[in-house]
Amino acid sequence: METISIDLALSTSIRALEKAGVAPENAKIQADLLLEAELRGRASHGLQRLPRIIQRIENAVADPDTVGVSTWNGTSLLEVDGCNGLGPVVAFNALAQISARARETGVAAATVSHCNHIGMLALYAQRIAEQGQILIAMTTSEALVHPWGGRKAMIGTNPIAIGVPATPLPFVLDMATSLVSMGQVHDYANRGQALQPGWALDIHGDPTLDAKAARDGAIAPFGDAKGYALGLAIEVLVASLTGCGLGTDVKGTLDNDQPCNKGDIFIVLQPAHNAAHTISTYLNAIRECEPAKADRPVLVPGDRAHEVRRHSLVDGIRLPAGVWQQIRVYAGE
Amino acid sequence: METISIDLALSTSIRALEKAGVAPENAKIQADLLLEAELRGRASHGLQRLPRIIQRIENAVADPDTVGVSTWNGTSLLEVDGCNGLGPVVAFNALAQISARARETGVAAATVSHCNHIGMLALYAQRIAEQGQILIAMTTSEALVHPWGGRKAMIGTNPIAIGVPATPLPFVLDMATSLVSMGQVHDYANRGQALQPGWALDIHGDPTLDAKAARDGAIAPFGDAKGYALGLAIEVLVASLTGCGLGTDVKGTLDNDQPCNKGDIFIVLQPAHNAAHTISTYLNAIRECEPAKADRPVLVPGDRAHEVRRHSLVDGIRLPAGVWQQIRVYAGE
Repeated sequence: METISIDLALSTSIRALEKAGVAPENAKIQADLLLEAELRGRASHGLQRLPRIIQRIENAVADPDTVGVSTWNGTSLLEVDGCNGLGPVVAFNALAQISARARETGVAAATVSHCNHIGMLALYAQRIAEQGQILIAMTTSEALVHPWGGRKAMIGTNPIAIGVPATPLPFVLDMATSLVSMGQVHDYANRGQALQPGWALDIHGDPTLDAKAARDGAIAPFGDAKGYALGLAIEVLVASLTGCGLGTDVKGTLDNDQPCNKGDIFIVLQPAHNAAHTISTYLNAIRECEPAKADRPVLVPGDRAHEVRRHSLVDGIRLPAGVWQQIRVYAGE
Repeated sequence: METISIDLALSTSIRALEKAGVAPENAKIQADLLLEAELRGRASHGLQRLPRIIQRIENAVADPDTVGVSTWNGTSLLEVDGCNGLGPVVAFNALAQISARARETGVAAATVSHCNHIGMLALYAQRIAEQGQILIAMTTSEALVHPWGGRKAMIGTNPIAIGVPATPLPFVLDMATSLVSMGQVHDYANRGQALQPGWALDIHGDPTLDAKAARDGAIAPFGDAKGYALGLAIEVLVASLTGCGLGTDVKGTLDNDQPCNKGDIFIVLQPAHNAAHTISTYLNAIRECEPAKADRPVLVPGDRAHEVRRHSLVDGIRLPAGVWQQIRVYAGE
């Protein structure tokens, strides 16, 4: 692992994207999002994804410039064809439009298709909530999760994010509907570490603790039958609105040569009143709830990420040497 | 337990509500919803709630007639003051307005406050999805759930429902964000049965298997930290939009004399294309996924409820004799 300063990581990443043909303002949007994930300790959504994004541009399954084509289907629903654009470039463009619209109409939504991986949803939720609005975001992915009681991967890790204004920081939920991430499984495999029971199935659909075997199998939904139900609901809701692929038909966020056909949904709501102070008072009461274990205070979603971020801003980020080297090469160093 | 035919259960329930001052059309809406829950085996949301509703009318914390007062905050966001109206009367009225509006605007939402318990969310999701639209519904409740790693009940059981058009039946998710319901805990207590580990805490915040002790304590969120995070997100999202009570301030769905101050949110989205057939094909593939246990086929949310409903329609419903007797007395028998 190498420790890299924030400024260097950002400038090198931007330069790598620019050399691949991405306009400066879009390179900044894409690099910022990856770096934000890295800062929060979310390596699976961090800079390790940059080389793949560049390879996807080279393979013409990612368009470095487009923000996609947007059409209002009614006053409040924006249909976005991402035209293979970079995920955060298309997504932030869509979000800006529906955020402005929701200030007039009270609620506005965007359905996004044919857009590359939009990355960590927390940042979108945070940005909208910082503006005093509420965001609900849902997105689909390659099928990695098995149905509850089933033996094959048929559902995406389908994360949901919810941002709500609070002070000084907004409330931000951002979670996959899988119990663990496939990235974690790969990490365990690389370290030769055994998985925990219930995490994964092998390629034959049998439970396994062997992380290497699990890579070709399926990961479990979080929360048993209920988490499965929620992940499946996100899969069909997003597909119904975006016309995106379903289950094992989904490609394009884990490879470097397939058009990306998952879908993304954003809903922005405009609260009639500013409740940020009330919400924060309640969240602080939650944090002060007597803990089950005296040395483990109760946390609110986002607390740990912000703690990690605070340290990262001072200490820099840590990247696998191979990943950093690859980014530097793409940056022409 | 007594077995009662559907027709008799419905007509008696409607008569009981009418005698309490509910107009015939509203009595039918309220009774239908309770009966639908009963038909699906959801006794906690079924006719056992009817006596409490009538007592709440008698105690002037439920208004038998109002549909509430609705104001459009922008073209697409309906702010509904339920004015202590009956849950499903206010909710179906709000839903009809935003469903019609979403046909024009693409998306419309309702924020509902000061409205009595709206009951099983599945029915709202089903009705909207049968009309070719998507529903997301979230609602809060009395604090019964402890934060993950905390010792006190500070969060509602906060259910979420999602309805998506499919054929022949729509896809309907309807789940609380608690691991079990407080109704289940009471059932176990009544039967002298032990709870399962991890389900509940006693009044001191210690884990307990004693169902009687758990009634005064707290139930766990489903899905550990993630389910906790989702339930908390629903709590703050709904409160932020409706101005409803938070945590232990919430009253009025489990008592018969406190004004109801939880909140409800409905979001209706209008798909640009009819994807019902595609969604159903995928859901059928999920059902046909090779099961982990040969004799337990993979289910899709709603499958079990519809199976129970099919049987109930033939066999009638089973109610505790005391509940049925109480309803009959209210009906003037």
